[in-house]
Amino acid sequence: MALTLYDLAGAEPNRRFSPYCWRIRLALAHKQLPVETIPWRFTDKDVIAFSGQGRVPVLVDADKALAGSWTIANYLEQKYPDRSLFGGPVGAALTRFVESWTDTILQPGLVPLILVDVFARLHEKDRAYFRASREQRLGMTLEAACADRDKRVIGFRQSLEPLRTTLRGQSFLGGETPNYADYIVFGAFMWARSTSPFELMEKDDPVALWRGRLLDRFEVAGRAPGYDD
Amino acid sequence: MALTLYDLAGAEPNRRFSPYCWRIRLALAHKQLPVETIPWRFTDKDVIAFSGQGRVPVLVDADKALAGSWTIANYLEQKYPDRSLFGGPVGAALTRFVESWTDTILQPGLVPLILVDVFARLHEKDRAYFRASREQRLGMTLEAACADRDKRVIGFRQSLEPLRTTLRGQSFLGGETPNYADYIVFGAFMWARSTSPFELMEKDDPVALWRGRLLDRFEVAGRAPGYDD
Repeated sequence: MALTLYDLAGAEPNRRFSPYCWRIRLALAHKQLPVETIPWRFTDKDVIAFSGQGRVPVLVDADKALAGSWTIANYLEQKYPDRSLFGGPVGAALTRFVESWTDTILQPGLVPLILVDVFARLHEKDRAYFRASREQRLGMTLEAACADRDKRVIGFRQSLEPLRTTLRGQSFLGGETPNYADYIVFGAFMWARSTSPFELMEKDDPVALWRGRLLDRFEVAGRAPGYDD
Repeated sequence: MALTLYDLAGAEPNRRFSPYCWRIRLALAHKQLPVETIPWRFTDKDVIAFSGQGRVPVLVDADKALAGSWTIANYLEQKYPDRSLFGGPVGAALTRFVESWTDTILQPGLVPLILVDVFARLHEKDRAYFRASREQRLGMTLEAACADRDKRVIGFRQSLEPLRTTLRGQSFLGGETPNYADYIVFGAFMWARSTSPFELMEKDDPVALWRGRLLDRFEVAGRAPGYDD
């Protein structure tokens, strides 16, 4: 098989939960490119040392190794131009804004709602590393960060308003069909779905309905181990 | 002249400050379409009654009248396809997310920083209407809404993070050159610049630098009456 993706996994090898890896798994599915995924844990640094850095996603295409979701998505778009991920250069530029919103608002907003559950799904060998690195970043314990999540979810739902308003008017961020901007945002929800039973949204939230359309559309996501809230 | 735009003005006819009208003025400049603009005030409802509603922007193109910035932008894109505003259908779909972010986060974030200054720039005949309608919407006086703006600006600057992160990596939201997504966001800053001397950003903020690039690029904006912070 030509393509290999190193993909973050929990204790169970098929529980894949990295939001950045999900972006690429959906990009590959969008382009209908078969891929072999290799379950990888945070502490398997040596396994991907050949990529020159220590984080996933790492994609191997024949003799090429690529790291970083944006780099990989652009590589796929260039190397396999059929079924565009961006709809052209302006689409790619605007996708960066969706990515920035996801990285600076959506994902940080999910942290205090799901991080204890992410921890609970980890492989034993990753736990000490994960707890120490995240608690240093947060300046508090995982448990303290996720205290009061029943209250904090209200602010989280409000923070989705730009996404919600957009999805009231169109089926996907990309328009009538999804594209890479959708997969960036959806990756964050797959991170949550793969690890946490916590209910993020009301069932009739336009964001929840959009997530449902993507779960229906992509087997790789819809059949992945996770919690349906 | 073929195109006429009804454009919200303050006491001085050349002080144009509607963020939605600015979107269209920039779209017209982008397409290099000459336009006659007519200063319009909130209480001039009868003047645009022909458009079927009571708000600007209203664009008249020969025998056609169009209202609403998104409708007008799409009309211009179809009727005058040279120099695309969206870069294709995916670009147009993704622009909706930028618009939603601007409408639900950026502009509401500016309200408590500039609204008293907007009021001070209004034509005498608009003041009672503006104060009554805005205070009903806000549930408080204009002055109360803008109290503590020196403190609130900190949260406003934080809210720009998705925009800031994007503009650290590229010159414009549209990529190497600006397009309608830029004009949507820039319109909000023109609303502020036209009415308020309040300093929204540090001078070296990537958002301030981007705003400067657009002011330099478009005379219609750069030469408009306003406050340089």
